[in-house]
Amino acid sequence: MENSFGKLFTITCFGESHGRCMGIIVDGCPAGLAITEGDVQKEVDKRKPKAGVAATTRVEEDRVEILSGTFKGFTTGAPICLLVWNKDVDSREYEKRRFLPRPGHADYTAFMKYGGFNDYRGGGRFSGRRTAALVMAGAIAKKLLNLISVGVLAHAVEIGGIKAKPTEFDQIKENIEKNPVKCADLQAAEEMISVIEKAREEGDSVGGIVEGIALNVPASLGEPVFDTLDGDLAKALFAIPAVKGVEFGLGFSAARKKGSENNDSFVIKNNKIVTLTNNAGGILGGISNSMPILVRVAIKPTPSIAKNQKTVNIKNMENARLVIKGRHDACIVPRAVPVVESMMAVTLCDFVIRAGLIPKVIK
Amino acid sequence: MENSFGKLFTITCFGESHGRCMGIIVDGCPAGLAITEGDVQKEVDKRKPKAGVAATTRVEEDRVEILSGTFKGFTTGAPICLLVWNKDVDSREYEKRRFLPRPGHADYTAFMKYGGFNDYRGGGRFSGRRTAALVMAGAIAKKLLNLISVGVLAHAVEIGGIKAKPTEFDQIKENIEKNPVKCADLQAAEEMISVIEKAREEGDSVGGIVEGIALNVPASLGEPVFDTLDGDLAKALFAIPAVKGVEFGLGFSAARKKGSENNDSFVIKNNKIVTLTNNAGGILGGISNSMPILVRVAIKPTPSIAKNQKTVNIKNMENARLVIKGRHDACIVPRAVPVVESMMAVTLCDFVIRAGLIPKVIK
Amino acid sequence: MENSFGKLFTITCFGESHGRCMGIIVDGCPAGLAITEGDVQKEVDKRKPKAGVAATTRVEEDRVEILSGTFKGFTTGAPICLLVWNKDVDSREYEKRRFLPRPGHADYTAFMKYGGFNDYRGGGRFSGRRTAALVMAGAIAKKLLNLISVGVLAHAVEIGGIKAKPTEFDQIKENIEKNPVKCADLQAAEEMISVIEKAREEGDSVGGIVEGIALNVPASLGEPVFDTLDGDLAKALFAIPAVKGVEFGLGFSAARKKGSENNDSFVIKNNKIVTLTNNAGGILGGISNSMPILVRVAIKPTPSIAKNQKTVNIKNMENARLVIKGRHDACIVPRAVPVVESMMAVTLCDFVIRAGLIPKVIK
Amino acid sequence: MENSFGKLFTITCFGESHGRCMGIIVDGCPAGLAITEGDVQKEVDKRKPKAGVAATTRVEEDRVEILSGTFKGFTTGAPICLLVWNKDVDSREYEKRRFLPRPGHADYTAFMKYGGFNDYRGGGRFSGRRTAALVMAGAIAKKLLNLISVGVLAHAVEIGGIKAKPTEFDQIKENIEKNPVKCADLQAAEEMISVIEKAREEGDSVGGIVEGIALNVPASLGEPVFDTLDGDLAKALFAIPAVKGVEFGLGFSAARKKGSENNDSFVIKNNKIVTLTNNAGGILGGISNSMPILVRVAIKPTPSIAKNQKTVNIKNMENARLVIKGRHDACIVPRAVPVVESMMAVTLCDFVIRAGLIPKVIK
Repeated sequence: MENSFGKLFTITCFGESHGRCMGIIVDGCPAGLAITEGDVQKEVDKRKPKAGVAATTRVEEDRVEILSGTFKGFTTGAPICLLVWNKDVDSREYEKRRFLPRPGHADYTAFMKYGGFNDYRGGGRFSGRRTAALVMAGAIAKKLLNLISVGVLAHAVEIGGIKAKPTEFDQIKENIEKNPVKCADLQAAEEMISVIEKAREEGDSVGGIVEGIALNVPASLGEPVFDTLDGDLAKALFAIPAVKGVEFGLGFSAARKKGSENNDSFVIKNNKIVTLTNNAGGILGGISNSMPILVRVAIKPTPSIAKNQKTVNIKNMENARLVIKGRHDACIVPRAVPVVESMMAVTLCDFVIRAGLIPKVIK
Repeated sequence: MENSFGKLFTITCFGESHGRCMGIIVDGCPAGLAITEGDVQKEVDKRKPKAGVAATTRVEEDRVEILSGTFKGFTTGAPICLLVWNKDVDSREYEKRRFLPRPGHADYTAFMKYGGFNDYRGGGRFSGRRTAALVMAGAIAKKLLNLISVGVLAHAVEIGGIKAKPTEFDQIKENIEKNPVKCADLQAAEEMISVIEKAREEGDSVGGIVEGIALNVPASLGEPVFDTLDGDLAKALFAIPAVKGVEFGLGFSAARKKGSENNDSFVIKNNKIVTLTNNAGGILGGISNSMPILVRVAIKPTPSIAKNQKTVNIKNMENARLVIKGRHDACIVPRAVPVVESMMAVTLCDFVIRAGLIPKVIK
Repeated sequence: MENSFGKLFTITCFGESHGRCMGIIVDGCPAGLAITEGDVQKEVDKRKPKAGVAATTRVEEDRVEILSGTFKGFTTGAPICLLVWNKDVDSREYEKRRFLPRPGHADYTAFMKYGGFNDYRGGGRFSGRRTAALVMAGAIAKKLLNLISVGVLAHAVEIGGIKAKPTEFDQIKENIEKNPVKCADLQAAEEMISVIEKAREEGDSVGGIVEGIALNVPASLGEPVFDTLDGDLAKALFAIPAVKGVEFGLGFSAARKKGSENNDSFVIKNNKIVTLTNNAGGILGGISNSMPILVRVAIKPTPSIAKNQKTVNIKNMENARLVIKGRHDACIVPRAVPVVESMMAVTLCDFVIRAGLIPKVIK
Repeated sequence: MENSFGKLFTITCFGESHGRCMGIIVDGCPAGLAITEGDVQKEVDKRKPKAGVAATTRVEEDRVEILSGTFKGFTTGAPICLLVWNKDVDSREYEKRRFLPRPGHADYTAFMKYGGFNDYRGGGRFSGRRTAALVMAGAIAKKLLNLISVGVLAHAVEIGGIKAKPTEFDQIKENIEKNPVKCADLQAAEEMISVIEKAREEGDSVGGIVEGIALNVPASLGEPVFDTLDGDLAKALFAIPAVKGVEFGLGFSAARKKGSENNDSFVIKNNKIVTLTNNAGGILGGISNSMPILVRVAIKPTPSIAKNQKTVNIKNMENARLVIKGRHDACIVPRAVPVVESMMAVTLCDFVIRAGLIPKVIK
């Protein structure tokens, strides 16, 4: 079950970058949810490379097909299989450097683990293209969360060292589609674009940080001591290629605070218990406290760079050099944004269903 | 199964801070492992408060008892139940402030989730005392990993803003038991102790960062795309109270690097493939690459502080003030160190068994 | 997780026949359920050997202790650890014939699987005594099911070839505690006792069939296509030692019926849809249909018999003879009755919670 | 995860009878297994209705497509998605009697569970057609088992009251493809065909019993106390539509034996420990003992019969009558045979992999 995630709302993904398709099964979705291929398509389209930052020459139409689990426009309670077919595939380059693992990629570990039987074309199973499947599942999860007014949103808060100013939720929502880096601080966005452009010119790449926010999350989500809300969110987010760190609320900065600075005081506001600050990122003891969930995800710089790199020939066991041809995204952070959003939605959905907050049949 | 973790090597914990005991079941341990209560005791003792930094007045003997799963000094293949009895318990203080959730603690979320039925004494299920059980499981996991020469070690790398200098593995091993903060940089350790002492005097607390290292980890551990090595380690580490962030290798710093700086070049050394740097922290595509696993864990400052804090009375729904009596550890980072080690060991053990690297019967 | 069962209401058992205890953890029990050690004790006492049929010389007090998960008489939402200590243990006999596996027992398979490290005393982990733990979990499950008026009951319907006449539910409930074989047909019960007595005199044993009934089960329990109600009940029942078959409704007899005889017609009765017959045993397509759940469980004759039997010496690899000393139950069917009841209750409870029919907090 | 089965070798199925396809994902298959669509096709073809007994007018080509997880003719270690497209679909009849649940079918329970949103056409998710997906997974499982010489075989041993004579394994293998009822006793097969033919003429149907055999199964498969070999096989077999009972070895007959008759004596034969009889069906204490696994599965008579039946209109809540049009298999036992074989293979495969008997990479 290594390709499955979630206890009651379970996703199981399949497919390779240069295989026939990328697909995912969503199992445990309540019956009666209105969903169409168009609804899912809208989310998948958010993942598409945007002019200005992206440079993958591969252009996939990525038309979503639902193979099972819906009937007359509603979910049936049966597993929902969604997929996009792979069409624009050119594998020649990968055949040539089959035995030269790209630094920073999973080529080497995949080769070792699967004894060389892995589909190495385009990174195979380890391709960022896999995230198209995650976004399809996220589309359904977001629809479900919407029933109880939970909103999930992600945005780029740092790229290539450029940090965005803190922005309010509504502003984020409005601004992120206005620029190709999905940053709410439009000024910073400009700079980020320059930094990415510069990296590309140098045959290099940059990383960044994506922040995920969930609003209106009810208290009591999370099942300690192991199936904590933060623990499962972290696990879900590490399934996104290139993620190297996950933190909640103040995260690593909390380690430098005093207790008196870091503790969020409880107060009553409009007859509800809230905290004055949200340093905890909405999670205490692994359980949501009804404040916004705040998570930050570190994305490493794209490992595919145009520079000449050292590597080894794993067949001959000799040192070698590698130049990765073709144009690659000099920064994948913008494309990771909707995926962070999706994995948050999928994880929250599982906990919401475990908590019994969405009925088995939606009416 | 929310209190269980691990697929083949599974731990299931139980017990409350002021209940009868703290216990854990280790299921899936191969038969034939030599293990005694003394072996486990040695690890549990590492968790004990050290003079100089700790201040919990509660002094538990924490004598480990094995209730099942071993016979004539060896594991039998049956589930191993281990526990420590609670003895030194004074719950009066908790009864008094039952309806005043402590800021930064799980009091509020536990009350909401369990409808007030939760055992609130000493934080109940959410007490740091729970980690005694994790360390017992870790003791068994470390014994198993030892069979294939995998070593796991954790140490404090930052406390109250004081950062330790990078230190070699052997040095860390030697130094961490020489000081009560479990820091390998003895100079920094002195400063950390002062910072903690100062915080205590102010009725405040500090947090810090624990680094975990696993050496000699074979390649191929991790089961992508969801049961990744980093994802499962992160999930395991978030089960430790007060953890707010987890990062691997360069972690959040990777987000500020260029691809050419961050990529670890492969080279052949002594007929083995290694990487020149280890920015990835030993994990590529969710799979170990045989380099050391490096993980850093952010620990927030102890939420129990002596200062007067704002909170609410959740029964009357009124704003209130709270002063937490008794002496509390002004920094829990040192006590978190063996727990980080344990959770790493438990997680690695599960993957090692999944990979078939330890036989079902040890001979 | 091989010693765990259930997805949301999960039991994890531990302990050996001649070890320190037999215990079980119930995880996922909603908070707020009133439960005392006395409540559980009452169920465990039903498992005790009854004068007239049983003959195990071992007499355990089997006093139930709850180690965690309850507070002030209510469940807290935390894992509930329950156990009975082993006291009356004489292992000498088992040491003597350590390498002579008893035919029909798990001695041989356990030896092979665990490389001889298994605790062989009294069958160790494979002892019928393990069922004491199952009954403790069943006690909690039955309390929960009681909240939604689901009743579970088991009784002996056949022993040593003597079949009981069909009896109404209320009659069964009334009669089964009136005789030591837990048979509702009091006439047949007499004959069963004679058959057992005769077998014992011959140094032999007999088996039988236990029927389990669940009344007032709501429609819609079961999660096809794999987590079916019948499939999970069957899996749970095969965890009871000596079970060799499980059937629902007409079961194997259905294989000999025509479709027109076997189909249960739907009719409306008191404004509810019911079936005229219940050949399906309350389950269609793996889902409950609100009719009584009917399951029958085949129990093989006690393998421990006083006759001289062929076996092998697994150490020397030589043919050997074995005479099992001590007195053993010539029929374990009566003692299996409360265990069947318990495993049905545990399984139903898991599905009831999955269906969201019991809230996370009971008020 | 209700549509997933297996812990390390996991199948996840999807699709509906009149939807776009029937598919299954096999996750956890070792890399390096040679497999083609043709290999799977061969198994799927065994499920096709045979002239002489079957009568479903629906004729599906059922051409197997592998969408992921293989590369250059070998498995890659990635999830393998297999499917057959639905083509020959006529749903008009089902639209007409949408609110008239067919007795003996899952129409009623599915309607209740999924609030009427379920795809009711052709039974939707509950159609026997679902078993095509199971057979595809079985094809891969059988290939894997073949690597360690484990053979799995099923055959019809009783249909409509006609019992087959016991037959040797080799004879079974040879004979079952010689007749459309897949019975090894060719004489009995003739009679079974007559009985089925007679039932069809009467607008009725008959059931029967399928026996599954696994040869050369190594000792030590099964993970007690809950993940027993018999328990998991039973759960897997109850996922086959129309199964009402499962028994191992002597099964329900064991309940009528004496211990001295039922116990299988151990003896040494060719330097191996075997049992003189195999009343246990190859399983002791939930673990294989290296004797053949013997399981019998009760299949109820096809619920779709041509007779006029009582039912209710679930929309109007009125009593109603139903005549099911179209020709249906008067006996589904022959078509269940390869499915029993497949589910046995899938379950054994999971345990074989858990036991570490097949490497992660096949060479």
